[in-house]
Amino acid sequence: MMISAKIANFQEADLELNMPVPQQGLIRHIHDLNRWDPDHFLPWYIAGQQVGFIKHQLVEALRQWPHYFAISDDGVSFIAEADSIEQRSRILTEVVEELRQQAVIEHYLNESFAVTAGSPNQLLARLDRGAATHFGIRTFGQHLNGYVRSDQGLLLWTARRSADRIRFQNMLDNLVAGGLPDNLSLHDNLLKECREEANIPPDLVRNAKAVGAVSYCRETETGLKPDTLYCYDLELPETFEPENTDGEVAEFQLLPVAQVLELIRHSDEFKPNCNLVNLDFLIRHGLIDADEPDYLELVRGLHGVTRAEHMLIE
Amino acid sequence: MMISAKIANFQEADLELNMPVPQQGLIRHIHDLNRWDPDHFLPWYIAGQQVGFIKHQLVEALRQWPHYFAISDDGVSFIAEADSIEQRSRILTEVVEELRQQAVIEHYLNESFAVTAGSPNQLLARLDRGAATHFGIRTFGQHLNGYVRSDQGLLLWTARRSADRIRFQNMLDNLVAGGLPDNLSLHDNLLKECREEANIPPDLVRNAKAVGAVSYCRETETGLKPDTLYCYDLELPETFEPENTDGEVAEFQLLPVAQVLELIRHSDEFKPNCNLVNLDFLIRHGLIDADEPDYLELVRGLHGVTRAEHMLIE
Repeated sequence: MMISAKIANFQEADLELNMPVPQQGLIRHIHDLNRWDPDHFLPWYIAGQQVGFIKHQLVEALRQWPHYFAISDDGVSFIAEADSIEQRSRILTEVVEELRQQAVIEHYLNESFAVTAGSPNQLLARLDRGAATHFGIRTFGQHLNGYVRSDQGLLLWTARRSADRIRFQNMLDNLVAGGLPDNLSLHDNLLKECREEANIPPDLVRNAKAVGAVSYCRETETGLKPDTLYCYDLELPETFEPENTDGEVAEFQLLPVAQVLELIRHSDEFKPNCNLVNLDFLIRHGLIDADEPDYLELVRGLHGVTRAEHMLIE
Repeated sequence: MMISAKIANFQEADLELNMPVPQQGLIRHIHDLNRWDPDHFLPWYIAGQQVGFIKHQLVEALRQWPHYFAISDDGVSFIAEADSIEQRSRILTEVVEELRQQAVIEHYLNESFAVTAGSPNQLLARLDRGAATHFGIRTFGQHLNGYVRSDQGLLLWTARRSADRIRFQNMLDNLVAGGLPDNLSLHDNLLKECREEANIPPDLVRNAKAVGAVSYCRETETGLKPDTLYCYDLELPETFEPENTDGEVAEFQLLPVAQVLELIRHSDEFKPNCNLVNLDFLIRHGLIDADEPDYLELVRGLHGVTRAEHMLIE
């Protein structure tokens, strides 16, 4: 339809229905990361505990292993004769490898994630990271905000992702951000990611403080991502300069927190889940006023007051 | 039953069912403040928006005003011919006053709270604070933690409540804590509470930072309390000494944060909702390790990942 025709047909109702959503505001980032439709999924269970949600298309593919998966309208139960984490993981690896060859799963990332009904250390099995979203398992990561105190207030180190990353190329990222594999402790993985992503020496990492976590749950074309990010603050000396060692970062910038807030409010420059980590940082440091519209919804939205997380943790 | 008989009848199952819950651990405070049974309540609505939950006993009492309340199995609708906040508030005041004379409601506190489906400033009516829990409306408060940096780490100012308070006599409290009446802004109420409770001068209050909020929902004998507390941090100079001016505080103490954590973990010294405010403080300041058992459940429990809050905000 031509613009002129659109204008000619203009009705008051169109205003709300068809206007593009303005790229501004803080709460939109919470909403964007928490969209999903339970009707698109079946819950799945290991040993009677719900460990994720699977889209109907993958449920159909799993019917080729009736000895591993019992499928009903109520959900998918992992029924393989496997009582140990090792046995279950071996079977899931076999399934994922076959699904990859059938092009149901695109990537095999060779990084092992915990399959859990609760915390990352309560794992029931292991699954390759490349299949995590397909099987809608809870994933865990660690994001660290490095900041510097200055006369003009706090300055936040941000990374710009390389152009050759598989996802979210060129977007802004937290100084350090990585998924939590099942075979590393929070402490060791943080050390590793700090070294790889920003070359922060262990002596400085020691000053990092665990300051909470943010959670969200997002539907993708092929699955569900109920994700929880442990958040860390690290005050850095003015003399420190981050340096990327794994090729995942194109450049680092030290931005005044007011500018970070403006970027979150008025742009989509940041990788989506980094908006949550940064909003949490800004709130904790008193940089968002309690009179901000949606303040309470923001605070609680950052912590997974959504149906998805709710169903997974109860 | 005598102790000896109990021992004679001992069965393994008794261990879990009948042993007293140990008074220790952090997550128990979240659980204690989030117990409620939806079957005990009906939701109630103003202008089609849910504003609270009412226990069946009060629902029965409301049947004496069929021109004000339409009652069905699905809920209670406020149907009085009242389109303005003023008109609705006048009618609710009349109802509460009558219920007080009928001894259905004990106290009339002469402090007006917002009746709202969302934030405190989106009010649909006003209700006396003494009736807030009976009508299960969302309530809002402000708690401020005053702290001092020392060579031994952070020290937290705590208040001990007076012996003559109506509730929670002699328990430990945050330095400043108060409900948010509907006729004061967050800013003005904080100034007022800081003056009354600890005689903190406005020049110091100006340094207070809004750092988030905690939420919980607790069933009482007569109603429901879905409560949200705006949290504030205020770094105080070592020279500052709080002084109570309204008689609500018996004494103030400056405690090392490690001791505050021990009190929360091993005692019930703190007023219940202050445990949440303090846990939030300790987490944000990196004083609770991410490896703490229940860390993620704690972080999210503080922010209302409970069925009650869920139902109220969606």
